[in-house]
Amino acid sequence: MANSPSGDSMTERIVRVLETFTADRSMQSAAEIGRRAGLPSSTAHRMVEELVDAGLLERDQDRRVHLGMRLWELALRGSTALRLRQAALPFMEQVQADIREHTQLAVLEQDEALFLERLSHPDAGANITRIAGRLPLHASSSGLVLLAHAPAALRERVLAGPLRALAPETVTNPALLRRLLTDVRRTGVVIAPGSVEAVSTGVAVPIRDAGEVIAALSVVLPRDTAPDAAIAALRAAAAGTEATLRADRR
Amino acid sequence: MANSPSGDSMTERIVRVLETFTADRSMQSAAEIGRRAGLPSSTAHRMVEELVDAGLLERDQDRRVHLGMRLWELALRGSTALRLRQAALPFMEQVQADIREHTQLAVLEQDEALFLERLSHPDAGANITRIAGRLPLHASSSGLVLLAHAPAALRERVLAGPLRALAPETVTNPALLRRLLTDVRRTGVVIAPGSVEAVSTGVAVPIRDAGEVIAALSVVLPRDTAPDAAIAALRAAAAGTEATLRADRR
Repeated sequence: MANSPSGDSMTERIVRVLETFTADRSMQSAAEIGRRAGLPSSTAHRMVEELVDAGLLERDQDRRVHLGMRLWELALRGSTALRLRQAALPFMEQVQADIREHTQLAVLEQDEALFLERLSHPDAGANITRIAGRLPLHASSSGLVLLAHAPAALRERVLAGPLRALAPETVTNPALLRRLLTDVRRTGVVIAPGSVEAVSTGVAVPIRDAGEVIAALSVVLPRDTAPDAAIAALRAAAAGTEATLRADRR
Repeated sequence: MANSPSGDSMTERIVRVLETFTADRSMQSAAEIGRRAGLPSSTAHRMVEELVDAGLLERDQDRRVHLGMRLWELALRGSTALRLRQAALPFMEQVQADIREHTQLAVLEQDEALFLERLSHPDAGANITRIAGRLPLHASSSGLVLLAHAPAALRERVLAGPLRALAPETVTNPALLRRLLTDVRRTGVVIAPGSVEAVSTGVAVPIRDAGEVIAALSVVLPRDTAPDAAIAALRAAAAGTEATLRADRR
């Protein structure tokens, strides 16, 4: 149904169009979208027209398009991501108030850590993550929490590499990583100095729902900060979020 | 391209499928989706399969589906909604800390107020709004701000009705509404007691970007609370958000 001559479904083509939009590229012409999505120009123009008609894209005065509010609404209205994020947000605000550094919520998505929320303190230090951005599982503190509790098959696939270094101190040795993940399961916390950026230490803890780890909560500390207060704040926030999720399900 | 026998585009059909998911209905079977989207069962099953393959929907153990993290990511990553929300969030947190009631950010979308963000204080009173939820322009305090500054054609279309009452005190008389909107443009604030719910008063102010009103910031107060502190907090938050948006565009 609705397949193109090249065999990809219309859904896949729509995804390819939407994928061309990023935080740094939120406005594009139909020609640019076509080039970046690898679609013939006439196809790209027709698809943009159709997506604008449906409200998934919106056109501005100079005929460039951006992602539509309607897409945002459809993606969020019934989403489990929003349920998790709403449960976590009040507790993340408490972490941010106490620790005064970036506070983040991530889930496992396609072998990466996908960030659902990030609260930033005006005085906080460096931080590479963005909402709806991703980081490798083996490098980010959130990713290490998710990887430690991931299904064994996924964990082995990630450990089999390639394991890219984001910074000089990213752990990329599979044997060391395996030991680190065992520690994470035992201690219930990740402390990852210099793993994403040399100037900062990621600290992360798991959030469980119905016994399963479903997310990681993290803060990014300046490299020289002792992690104790952050660990305590994150654990309290995780427990609060888990209690809200439990109450939600009743 | 990719049109069905009934003439609706594949994009429109995907939107119809996504529209069946709501905050109260986040998990469905393919058969339920088909029925609610008005699609033949075989079509619904094929479409769900295709959307699951693309990650826009996800299937759980009992073969029911929910909105996928991939859809969430694609909708947010390059979105202008996220840019506005990120600019406003720190200031909304300040409003919430000061006023300790629900704090909300809304934009105009298809002749309604669409809520992009809502921060809820644990001690706060009743509130009907939800993230990615909508309220009528003429009834909600946010909607009245957006309607007051909307293009004249849209305003006339809304004033021409029908103007549904959400509560006994919702203003549904077009002449009264018109006068109210003139006041809003002059005073820069909406105070709407009992307009959405009898027990609460909505207070809202505009947020401008490049001279245009692009959003409304609001709090929901218990009916007997004086609005002065809320107005001052909202005005400060709107000014802060506007400054962030200006800095962003440089």
